[in-house]
Amino acid sequence: VSYSACGMPYNIADPGRDIDDLVVRKAAVFRKKQGIDLLTGHRADRIHPDARTVSGTTRQGEGFSIAYDRLLIATGASPILPDIPGVTLPGIMTLKSLDDGRKIKSYIARNRVKKAVILGMGYIGLEMCEALRTLDIDVAMVKPGTVFLPRMDRDLARVVQEEVEARGVRLYPGTGAREIRAEGDRLAVDCGEHVHMADMVLAAMGVRPNSREAAAAGISLGPRESIAVDKTLRTSIPDIYSAGDCADAVHVVTGEKTWIPLALRANRSGWAAADNICGGNTMLAGVAGTAVFKVFDLEVARTGLTIEEARRHGFEPASVTVETRSRAHSHPGASAIYAHLVGDGKTGRLLGAQLVGREGAAHRINAAAVALHAGMTVRAFSDTDLSYAPPFGPTWDPLLTAANQLLKKMG
Amino acid sequence: VSYSACGMPYNIADPGRDIDDLVVRKAAVFRKKQGIDLLTGHRADRIHPDARTVSGTTRQGEGFSIAYDRLLIATGASPILPDIPGVTLPGIMTLKSLDDGRKIKSYIARNRVKKAVILGMGYIGLEMCEALRTLDIDVAMVKPGTVFLPRMDRDLARVVQEEVEARGVRLYPGTGAREIRAEGDRLAVDCGEHVHMADMVLAAMGVRPNSREAAAAGISLGPRESIAVDKTLRTSIPDIYSAGDCADAVHVVTGEKTWIPLALRANRSGWAAADNICGGNTMLAGVAGTAVFKVFDLEVARTGLTIEEARRHGFEPASVTVETRSRAHSHPGASAIYAHLVGDGKTGRLLGAQLVGREGAAHRINAAAVALHAGMTVRAFSDTDLSYAPPFGPTWDPLLTAANQLLKKMG
Repeated sequence: VSYSACGMPYNIADPGRDIDDLVVRKAAVFRKKQGIDLLTGHRADRIHPDARTVSGTTRQGEGFSIAYDRLLIATGASPILPDIPGVTLPGIMTLKSLDDGRKIKSYIARNRVKKAVILGMGYIGLEMCEALRTLDIDVAMVKPGTVFLPRMDRDLARVVQEEVEARGVRLYPGTGAREIRAEGDRLAVDCGEHVHMADMVLAAMGVRPNSREAAAAGISLGPRESIAVDKTLRTSIPDIYSAGDCADAVHVVTGEKTWIPLALRANRSGWAAADNICGGNTMLAGVAGTAVFKVFDLEVARTGLTIEEARRHGFEPASVTVETRSRAHSHPGASAIYAHLVGDGKTGRLLGAQLVGREGAAHRINAAAVALHAGMTVRAFSDTDLSYAPPFGPTWDPLLTAANQLLKKMG
Repeated sequence: VSYSACGMPYNIADPGRDIDDLVVRKAAVFRKKQGIDLLTGHRADRIHPDARTVSGTTRQGEGFSIAYDRLLIATGASPILPDIPGVTLPGIMTLKSLDDGRKIKSYIARNRVKKAVILGMGYIGLEMCEALRTLDIDVAMVKPGTVFLPRMDRDLARVVQEEVEARGVRLYPGTGAREIRAEGDRLAVDCGEHVHMADMVLAAMGVRPNSREAAAAGISLGPRESIAVDKTLRTSIPDIYSAGDCADAVHVVTGEKTWIPLALRANRSGWAAADNICGGNTMLAGVAGTAVFKVFDLEVARTGLTIEEARRHGFEPASVTVETRSRAHSHPGASAIYAHLVGDGKTGRLLGAQLVGREGAAHRINAAAVALHAGMTVRAFSDTDLSYAPPFGPTWDPLLTAANQLLKKMG
């Protein structure tokens, strides 16, 4: 019922740990300690807003209908599978639910997987690529798009790509899988130019919101067919709320609706929806699109808009990328850290930030995220009093150095 | 002329490194490459604002007088020495200039120092205590005040104290040195109750601004006798500027003048003063008092006001301290992280933040620092989109967990 989905790649990397370590709260706790009437094995297929009921079928095939005063739709998101022949063959995995994680873990152990192909090169794909390499499994990654990490600055994406390739992972952007065939007890991932033989295939091509039932009930949808909600998590139909990876949000930089299914927003929207269902009036600010992932020894972080996104939203953006050091001049153990900032030439506003480095990227991004929430200008951000001590960075934080450079560029 | 003063404790900890590694730019570079008429060995004793000259004496004892159009006073700060008998004995050190660092390093090597007493328990004292322990030197720290890290929350200060004591350092708060005596080739630091025998004594009791010449010229002084400047680094006398550790600043939380001599502000004010002296109009925001230091395996960070400071400045503060984990639920390698927040009950504003942990404190503090610059409320801060991935923290950043708790307390 409640588990740490984001922890799965790290759990999979360690055969000594049980996947159930990731369970935060068991169903029994919800039932007994919290008094929640938890109906597992009940698939809700239809919402009847006029009758204020939800109907569906149990695992045993019996129909059910439940009345509600207020309804929360928290159906999450599902992995996207490529629409190609052979995609349902055994050995083709996705990673979203705890059962997915369990299946991958036991499949690797049982089949002595030596070679895997990952379809997709996003966060989950890269985290899983690290997990599989840790298990000494050969990894090739393929995707139809030609650009590696398209939502990162090109210079920063190159640093990440070099790190991934240095760990023996072969990347094939621009070559999507056309067909997967069973050949003996292996899988042949046919990408046209290349055919990759593998013991296991992981489809990590992103997720789509589970909004079909909501749409069928007449609830308005938002970007990418996510469920549209207001700041209080109310949908377009009275007394129906939505929260989690299925619901949309406002982007604090553009002021427009967006769908960015990430853990903090999902968690936060659940709390806020519960408050409001119980009569509260909790209003959520938007999301800044802050995201971080670790891939091998690199921390990769971003918040706000890329320069292309900024252009699409009518800004007149300028950007800058700087390379500085993770520790002070002459401090031992320093490594390169790359900072990228995007600002609006018209208003002077900070629009986005990205960081890549072996240390100091993951938490540093938060300074820029808060600046985006506050609608700060690049000038104001460049003048903030950020922390400094030799083991943790140069006197001027990499984000400040980038802001100073960006100011010059913005004139 | 230009060196990384903050790097000295780390350099001193490593006998294999030359102290001159810390030199960023040699005098010759300023002279030849930048065309600056650098007059080392010239002590400026008097400023004559009416005549627009500075006069003084060279190292060779000759008088000099130099005319100026605009004058920058960048005299820095000097270590405070206790006013006790014996304070000028050999073996009693301070750490401010590169020569101080050189002296300490060669003294330790030459005298095979086995035991040191540090007067003071501030950032420099604690960084040097770690450096000396790295060299296997026994350390005792004494200070007249009874409170360890008085500008930290008591719970966080206790965590730091336990770390320092666990490394074999003996702390004697509430016992200031009354006299230092030479006994054979050792020093006896007499604190009344205790007499500590030592091979070396480091006075790390803080610094005072070098503002005497400025005051004598009639320039207005600010807090702690620092040189008062406006946002453009102008002093009270036309065409005289001041920057660096000798000059004051506005605190962004209180809006009042403060004197917090730290590297980033010193560096930034130098750049801004130079811009303005050359005809620009660069205005600096204030300081948030963001500071971080490493002591053994702990990162200790703060920004803004303590609850006591907030009270003194007329706020109606509430505070909260939370202990969470440095990594996600079930992620290996996690350690405790402590977050402390101060907010104003009257306006809801965030007033200050502190963090202590083995990882993730140093850069995390910057999110709160930016929030202070933006004048954010605790509510708005609690709703920011901060980064999350299992290796870097729980889904809710420790600062967000603290903000949520503080909101409940503030009602």
